[in-house]
Amino acid sequence: MRALDPEIADRLHPDEHGLVPVVVQSADTAEVLMLAWMDVEALRRTLASGQATYWSRSRGTYWVKGATSGNRQTVTEVLLDCDGDTILLRVEQTGPACHTGSRTCFSTLHDEPAAPDSLAQT
Amino acid sequence: MRALDPEIADRLHPDEHGLVPVVVQSADTAEVLMLAWMDVEALRRTLASGQATYWSRSRGTYWVKGATSGNRQTVTEVLLDCDGDTILLRVEQTGPACHTGSRTCFSTLHDEPAAPDSLAQT
Repeated sequence: MRALDPEIADRLHPDEHGLVPVVVQSADTAEVLMLAWMDVEALRRTLASGQATYWSRSRGTYWVKGATSGNRQTVTEVLLDCDGDTILLRVEQTGPACHTGSRTCFSTLHDEPAAPDSLAQT
Repeated sequence: MRALDPEIADRLHPDEHGLVPVVVQSADTAEVLMLAWMDVEALRRTLASGQATYWSRSRGTYWVKGATSGNRQTVTEVLLDCDGDTILLRVEQTGPACHTGSRTCFSTLHDEPAAPDSLAQT
């Protein structure tokens, strides 16, 4: 078993659960597809395989994105933020990213951009 | 003081600290600029003012992005993910998004895209 490059591991600053949030962006369209979580081992597996591999907080296991659905994410670039506590993954997404079948997990809160105060109420 | 629209508040599922991660994306270039955190009150302030307002976990206070530096984020769209536990904010960014002076907080782990296993070592 190969370890994660120590230089990369040194730059990572996981939270109290040993995790960092991972922003997943389409390499083709630049759409933000989803947010997932990695620990050092999930990052090691991702870098070693080129397939996005996350830690499931709800199931307490590693999961290779798309291992069941076929909707895999092939990693084209791995970026780290200035504090080392967030990863940005650029991926080639096969099929929809969201388990609901949507292309991305995100949808607009309201159809129309809000004027100030229109979304707050008494 | 106006409350957050209850329909929006109902869809939000903050973590055990009352926070959700916020992915911040440039409305112009689609670049992912940074990741920050909001609680319900920060989201309410953001929607009411149109200026990105976050919760600082290190300082334990709200902060209007750019209030000190002038590098503000004017919100053009607010999106929520399928689980209600991540926000995606599209913004018009004034100046650099990163406190280091860089346009975004993210930089590539390695200059060259990795071949499988090239980033793991014995």
